[in-house]
Formats: sequence, structure tokens, C-alpha cells
Amino acid sequence: MSIPAIIVHGGAGHLGPDDPASSGGPDAPRLAGVRRAAAEALALLQRGGAALDAVELAVRILEDDPTYNAGTGSCLTADGEVEMDASIMEGEGLRCGAVAAVKDVQNPVSLARLVMERTEHVLLVGPGASALARAAGVPAVSNERLATAAQRARFEAARAGAPAAAPAKHGTVGAAARDRAGHLAAATSTGGTFLKRPGRVGDTPIIGAGTYADDMLAAVSCTGQGERFIRMTMARAAADLVGAGHAPAEAAAQALRRMTGRVGGDGGLIVVGPVGEPGFAHNTPVMSRAWSRADGTIEVGL
Amino acid sequence: MSIPAIIVHGGAGHLGPDDPASSGGPDAPRLAGVRRAAAEALALLQRGGAALDAVELAVRILEDDPTYNAGTGSCLTADGEVEMDASIMEGEGLRCGAVAAVKDVQNPVSLARLVMERTEHVLLVGPGASALARAAGVPAVSNERLATAAQRARFEAARAGAPAAAPAKHGTVGAAARDRAGHLAAATSTGGTFLKRPGRVGDTPIIGAGTYADDMLAAVSCTGQGERFIRMTMARAAADLVGAGHAPAEAAAQALRRMTGRVGGDGGLIVVGPVGEPGFAHNTPVMSRAWSRADGTIEVGL
Repeated sequence: MSIPAIIVHGGAGHLGPDDPASSGGPDAPRLAGVRRAAAEALALLQRGGAALDAVELAVRILEDDPTYNAGTGSCLTADGEVEMDASIMEGEGLRCGAVAAVKDVQNPVSLARLVMERTEHVLLVGPGASALARAAGVPAVSNERLATAAQRARFEAARAGAPAAAPAKHGTVGAAARDRAGHLAAATSTGGTFLKRPGRVGDTPIIGAGTYADDMLAAVSCTGQGERFIRMTMARAAADLVGAGHAPAEAAAQALRRMTGRVGGDGGLIVVGPVGEPGFAHNTPVMSRAWSRADGTIEVGL
Repeated sequence: MSIPAIIVHGGAGHLGPDDPASSGGPDAPRLAGVRRAAAEALALLQRGGAALDAVELAVRILEDDPTYNAGTGSCLTADGEVEMDASIMEGEGLRCGAVAAVKDVQNPVSLARLVMERTEHVLLVGPGASALARAAGVPAVSNERLATAAQRARFEAARAGAPAAAPAKHGTVGAAARDRAGHLAAATSTGGTFLKRPGRVGDTPIIGAGTYADDMLAAVSCTGQGERFIRMTMARAAADLVGAGHAPAEAAAQALRRMTGRVGGDGGLIVVGPVGEPGFAHNTPVMSRAWSRADGTIEVGL
């Protein structure tokens, strides 16, 4: 029997002076969400639930939380629309699913799971992904409903020529987990970069870049400048470092150092290994995260 | 000074009894194309050209050859359309570009290179990729022109309920090269699987799965059941094996054995390392390919 483990992130990035989380309260909005997601996923694992279900649950909670740049609350594209990417993977059979450039579902991570379980495919993009959602009975959600008033205001301000209020805040969300049976899983979801070119796809739905899980290695979810993570096959690289004997935290830090040494880039990642506590690393000022300790408590950090 | 090296594939798969290449002539259509692509790319390398230019040239030649399932001659989707994916990567700076689900360009590999060189992004999908093409002055090509009479007839036969004439023939194309300066590059292009669900994206445009290049490791291009290659981050895995000291042919064979041992799957891959001759492996009955020997001659094989 393995000790269940979960770690959740709400994105790596910068804090603006106006950011509620800057006040430092442990349950500022950006920490409250990751804490709740980790706690609910851990409760599921402690009841004997599967790592795959735990990471999907954690990511769904964060997609539904307008604080994060995923699902409801996603950044808007240059066209003023929400375009979302997500992926999920389990480490026993290396099954995985992903969607990219999807505009009309409430929970992209669950659509990614449908790709994994209901098709022979790994990645569906654009209207083809929406078609699977409709065929599976997933209701269409209007793009307007996914775009929050705050994101709409940010878009309008940028369109009116206002200088960016703060450095880019990546709000990608993700989770990595180990269940009692020792199986690993990881999932990641994002609205992508603010004012992105329509059709731009970052690392989030790319298996091996934004997400990877292999029971023999580790489960990993990344956040940050996605293009750099793709070039380094970051999630797979971090998982390989755990496979080579590094603890999750050290593997995360070393993968990030290798990336910055080779191609630069800002971001972070979370890692769960076959044993022990979860680990993480980031080279941005902040990365909201919450994780389980061996004693079953939840820690949060920024 | 390195010895220039190029290897090109025209897809791994099966031969139907009606296939012209079954007659075994060394320059049957499927071999003539890869021979010409390799010869022209090698000539470019021998003139001192860059590996990146060589792989783009080789893949363009195969995209324009209706024999292969890439560019002109792509398989049709379930909707009867051409939907193409491609990627390209260079091994010095790990720069890369990719496009997926593109319907209206003559040479997807060159659009992938535009993504690499004219944007901050790695992957553009669907209409967003076409928009970049138009902005860069790449003319729109009608979907009808990319669909050959042979592919149209195959689609109509399937729609009329005719049994499949032959097992799936993957006709994905790719190239991997090393130039005199010792730099590596790889590129891959495909029309995807016959009658695929619109929006389905395989390994071809996924950096680390269908294509990878790193001067410190190897250049790799894959072909086959793309979803299996994604799950194994196949191109990166093969490159890592070269980095661990295996010759390209052994790295290709070992990566393929690991894939089949873990998740099954049919296909093949080509590999160029920092030194020595190119290598390849496939577990399908055939994989058309052409490669350069150290003496500057071109070999072909099925």
C-alpha cells in the first residue's frame, strides 16, 4: 500500500501590487482554491480513489474557480475569446487524452479524459474536440459565460491601449497524484496566454511537455512559458530524473535549471514520485500550490 | 567538420498486393520519391547548407509527391477533407515550429518553419495557422487541390461501404539530417490517418513525440500509430538513447522495442546522431526510406 499524495498548482508567475494574494494572507483567493482542490483530491485518495480521478477532480475545481486562468476565468485571445487547452495521463498503462483550442465546455480536463476513454486518440483540437463533447452528452457552454467580467475588463483595457497593469500572470492549473495502489496520474488545464494568437497551443495539452505520468517514473504538471517547456519535453525530462533516482523536489529543480541553462524561460512544475512527498520548483516570483504531507495535512505556498 | 548525413522516410506500414512498390523494383514510386528527396537534401548539405534547410527541402519534396500521405496526396478525414500536421526542429538552439489541422497550404512543413521563425510560438492549429500563412504571404491552396483523385476514390469507396482494400498504409514523411557544421535537424509531415475524426492530431506535430532534434543528442522523425508514439515521447526517447551512447540504428530499435513492450503499436523511426551514419528501425512490414552513406552515395530500402 502506498501513501496517497497530491500536489496542485494554480500557475507560476508574478504578483501585481494590486493582487489580493500580495497581502500575504494564507488563504488569499489564489491559495484558497489550491488548498480546497488539494484537500478534496486527498480525501478522494484516502477513501481509496484512483489517482486519475483525484487529478481530474482537483483540476475541475480550479477550472471552475474564476481566480485561475483555466476554464471559467481563462485569459482572452487577441480575438477576445476563450480558447482552452487541457491534458490528463495515468501512469499504469500510459493512457492519456488532451484537447486544444476548445471554446465551449465547462471543464476541458474532463473532455481530455473523454478523448482518452472514448476514442483511440490522444489529442483533439478545435471543433473536432467540441464534436466529441456533444456526442458524449457534454453540454455546450457559451464562450461569453467562460469569460469573466474581470478578464473582459482586462481585454478591453488592453484594446484601449492601456499599458499592461502587471507582468504576465500565468494561471495555468495542474495536479499530480499517487493513489493507495501506487498508481500515478497528472493533469493540466489552461486558458493560455493573454491576447494570444488564436490557434496558439502551449505545453499544457502536449503529453511529455506540460503533463506526463508513468508509474515507473513520476507524475508531472508544468506551468509557465509553454513554448520553452515544449522545446525541453519538460514533463518527461523531470519524470526521467525521478526515474534516475532524484527525489521529486530535486528532479523538479534540476529540470528547471536545465531548461533555463539551455533555452531560458520562466515557470514551474510539480512532481509526485512512486514514494515519498510531492515536490515542486519554480523560477518565477510566485507559484501558488498546495500539497499533502505524509501525515495527511495540506500545506500551501506561494 | 562533420560528415553531412541525411535520412528520409516515406512512412511505415503495409504493402497491399496492388501496390506498385510490391513489384520490388528499386525505384518503384514509393522509393523514387524518398531517393530523390534524400539526394537533393544531401546535395544541399554537401554545398555547405544547413541541416534545417535540408530537412525542410526533403519534406517539401515528399509533400509535393502524391505518392505519400502528406501535403498533396494526404488521406481524407471522415468529412472528406484534407487536414495536415507538420513540425520542424533544429538542434543547436532547440528552436522548433509545428502546425496541426491545417487545410489550405501546399507545404505544411514550411508553415511550421514560419511558426518557428516568425512567431514566439511552437504550435498553431486550425484557422490560426492558416492566418499566419496568409500574413506571411503564403498563398491559400484549395482543399480540393490537395486531395488527389486516388485519395478521393479511396474515400468514396469507403463511404460506399467497400471493405478496406488493404491494411492501413501510413504514408507520413520525415527527414533527419546533420550538416558540415555538426548541427542536427528533423522534420515530419502527414495527412494523418484515413477517415480520421476531424481535429484528431497524432504525433507528427508534437515536439518530442514525432520530431526531435538536439545537437547534444540526435535528430529523430517518427511514423506509425501516432498515439502510441505520443504516450512514449518517442522522438525524445530515441534521442536520449543516442545521448546515452547507442548508435542511431540501435537507439531506434531499442526505442521501438520499449514502445511495443509497454503500449504496443506499429511504426518506425529514423535517427541521425552527432557522428556516423544514419539509422532506422521499424516493426511494420515496410518503411520506405533513403539515406546517405559516408561515401556520399544514397541507399534506399523498403
